[in-house]
Amino acid sequence: METAPIQRPADSNHLQNILQEVTNLLRKQHLVEHVLERSDTPRHALEQQVLHRQHLSELERKLHRLHVADIAYVLESLPLEDRLTVWDLVRADQDGEILLEVSDAVRESLIARMDQTELQAAAAQLDADELADLAADLPRDVLQRVLDTMDARHRARLQTALSYPEDTVGTLMDYEPVTIREDITLDLVYRYLRRMGELPDHTDKLFVTDRHGVLTGALLLRRMVAEDPVRRVSEVMARDVVTFSPLDAASAAAQAFERYDLVSAPVVDAQRRVLGRLTVDAVVDFLQEARDAEMLGRAGLREEEDLFAGVGPSVRNRWPWLAVNLVTALIASRVIGLFEGTIERLVALAALMPIVAGIGGNTGNQTSALIIRALALGQITGSNTRRLIRKEMQVALLNGVVWGGAVGTVAYLLYGNLKLGLVMSTAMLLNLALAALMGIFIPLTMHRLERDPALGSSVLLTAITDSGGFFIFLGLASVFLL
Amino acid sequence: METAPIQRPADSNHLQNILQEVTNLLRKQHLVEHVLERSDTPRHALEQQVLHRQHLSELERKLHRLHVADIAYVLESLPLEDRLTVWDLVRADQDGEILLEVSDAVRESLIARMDQTELQAAAAQLDADELADLAADLPRDVLQRVLDTMDARHRARLQTALSYPEDTVGTLMDYEPVTIREDITLDLVYRYLRRMGELPDHTDKLFVTDRHGVLTGALLLRRMVAEDPVRRVSEVMARDVVTFSPLDAASAAAQAFERYDLVSAPVVDAQRRVLGRLTVDAVVDFLQEARDAEMLGRAGLREEEDLFAGVGPSVRNRWPWLAVNLVTALIASRVIGLFEGTIERLVALAALMPIVAGIGGNTGNQTSALIIRALALGQITGSNTRRLIRKEMQVALLNGVVWGGAVGTVAYLLYGNLKLGLVMSTAMLLNLALAALMGIFIPLTMHRLERDPALGSSVLLTAITDSGGFFIFLGLASVFLL
Repeated sequence: METAPIQRPADSNHLQNILQEVTNLLRKQHLVEHVLERSDTPRHALEQQVLHRQHLSELERKLHRLHVADIAYVLESLPLEDRLTVWDLVRADQDGEILLEVSDAVRESLIARMDQTELQAAAAQLDADELADLAADLPRDVLQRVLDTMDARHRARLQTALSYPEDTVGTLMDYEPVTIREDITLDLVYRYLRRMGELPDHTDKLFVTDRHGVLTGALLLRRMVAEDPVRRVSEVMARDVVTFSPLDAASAAAQAFERYDLVSAPVVDAQRRVLGRLTVDAVVDFLQEARDAEMLGRAGLREEEDLFAGVGPSVRNRWPWLAVNLVTALIASRVIGLFEGTIERLVALAALMPIVAGIGGNTGNQTSALIIRALALGQITGSNTRRLIRKEMQVALLNGVVWGGAVGTVAYLLYGNLKLGLVMSTAMLLNLALAALMGIFIPLTMHRLERDPALGSSVLLTAITDSGGFFIFLGLASVFLL
Repeated sequence: METAPIQRPADSNHLQNILQEVTNLLRKQHLVEHVLERSDTPRHALEQQVLHRQHLSELERKLHRLHVADIAYVLESLPLEDRLTVWDLVRADQDGEILLEVSDAVRESLIARMDQTELQAAAAQLDADELADLAADLPRDVLQRVLDTMDARHRARLQTALSYPEDTVGTLMDYEPVTIREDITLDLVYRYLRRMGELPDHTDKLFVTDRHGVLTGALLLRRMVAEDPVRRVSEVMARDVVTFSPLDAASAAAQAFERYDLVSAPVVDAQRRVLGRLTVDAVVDFLQEARDAEMLGRAGLREEEDLFAGVGPSVRNRWPWLAVNLVTALIASRVIGLFEGTIERLVALAALMPIVAGIGGNTGNQTSALIIRALALGQITGSNTRRLIRKEMQVALLNGVVWGGAVGTVAYLLYGNLKLGLVMSTAMLLNLALAALMGIFIPLTMHRLERDPALGSSVLLTAITDSGGFFIFLGLASVFLL
């Protein structure tokens, strides 16, 4: 069965409409079920059952017309109970692909619903590289049985795919490279391709190898179709090919795809023999997942959360970050505690101290965002670090003088205490300088320790600018105001 | 001249090595200049000048072998003075492409270096869609002259390209679609393509139209090359084609590219006549820029900053956000000011109050990150909002009981005041509930007002949880502890 044409998906209502239709059908269904429970005559019950079946088959027809990516979206957007109703109606031969499309959290809920036979059937639909993505979520015995029923070549491939470390090219590559020999004519290539049938998705080039299987170039389809078929591959192919190793970092490969505008690229071993290929769709998915993880991670969520997860899993996802923040907040609180005597004698300090701490955190995060981005783009070298520090310190000092001056003036006007205003200004200046330094050093140090500077930089920075801000402000106040 | 092969760019040192080599050559250069200034004999000066020229031409050769994207990277990573030295050595016929690759901030610094003639020459190298991207940064008279020298068709195209609103498909599309008629044989298509020569970059399909130029399907190259050339286009083409309108949101189009794994797609008007095409490289660039803007925006930077910009531009880029934060900090400070009498009588409150405010901000940001992501994916509908609110409130209350209880106990142990512990616990519970509500409502409201919920949500949320936290905690303390 053909899936329906997706004509203008960017029409803002495309997905919302799909979801709305599915939700409406589900609601009708719930209504019928509700009536069915209360129906008192067999005849009435029968009628309702017929209606029930009608609604289900309407929903089923609707689902069969959707693209797998859209079914995945519907599953993501439904509460658990409705999600499982829909999942039962999806065509069994799409199960594997849909499991690949949904997020980890939703995948778990779907797999929990399937029995062994269904899972094995779904797994059997997938290529080795796809199965490798799913393997971690499959029950161990199902995975074992799938392995048992595979031929030796596929099994070896799956085991290789599973052996690559996370976030490497090896985990993103597929095993569908089309390779040709360089000493043949295009005519022969066409004959070979016609025997093969349609090329795999995202094939924009054929990989050209010598007799030892070593990569020597690439034949672009968009060039091939415009060439005279009597020419040889070696005359028409491009010799400068961007290649990857399976152990290259996925993020570096993604950057290269973006930089050199690639659609597909060969993945080769140390002898430049073709192992597989990396395609732009895998790269885009990787970028999107990395972006999501970064956004959620920065807000302190350990991983993607099923929007409709129970309270338990949600809470577990959020506690580690809250615990860390609670500890840093307690430390800041103890710093203030040191100066309780000072605050008791000049209570205005209590009202003013959060300003010093807060603005420090803000400027520090501005600096660290720039540094994190520059690190990600590989723009920071030993030779320009000092220049960067100098510039950021200048910015911080200028900000300190201007904003510190402004805040000091406000403090003076509010409390009519000139010395208080001066202490406030000086504290702002010092805390902004501290913030700028930390905004540079924390990401640089994390980068040097090979940890992701985007995660955790912000907590650490804010902890330092909070405690530091309180200490500087209250310390200066103790010395100069009492 | 051919550019050198980029063999394994994901090798982690690829870019760093390029930058290091360029930097070394520049350093040698500075050294010679330094010596030259002090050379006292004409002979010595002459020697140094020769050396100077040798270094420059070595650097020039090196640059000529680089891919334009790599030159752009080098320019981004160098301080202004060195950047301009390199810019002067770049091949003039690459100027246009490089200007497209670099960031806005760096582009400004390069354009400032060029005279009118150079700028016009660079602009003349570009297609209408590329020129449209650059137009905002070009001096008005240069743009006018470029327009004057264009033929009518190109001028009209450029004017159309300039007329599309920001962040729409129209600003990302190019004008290189290859269209064929559906009633011809593949043989004829091949003959047509051979006359045309190599197809444009990222051509994975030809767009098929009827005699009125209306899109009826698409012929995939990877299918075409595997078909018998005597077949007709209409027999081989795909009829379900994903299309876009030039006014579709770029972000929705990017989602569709990701969802349906596209390489290129036709952009059509209301009558489905082909206007141009959208390709995956433009989409990847857009996603990357959106991600950068989001990351910098969230940290409070108005726009990308040239890493080596002067203090002036940097400061201007950061002030609006600091000003907003200063106002919210002052408001929070005035809320505390209301309770100065209370704090004076129980100074422990000053030390404890930042904990209540801080943890509120953290949980609120966790909730809003989830909501912002779900909004971006289109997963939130009228029918599931209530369910989401209920779940987030449950999470907040559970967190409030657990963490509030823990913090209350700590407060009790520190200050030996049971009532203080109870007030602390209650305030935490209430502020976490407030945070969860705001974490949902702020992004939802921004979305409904058609503003980007990722920008500004965090400031607003933190402002409310700070002031709210202080008010709740100090208010409860005034009532129950004095």
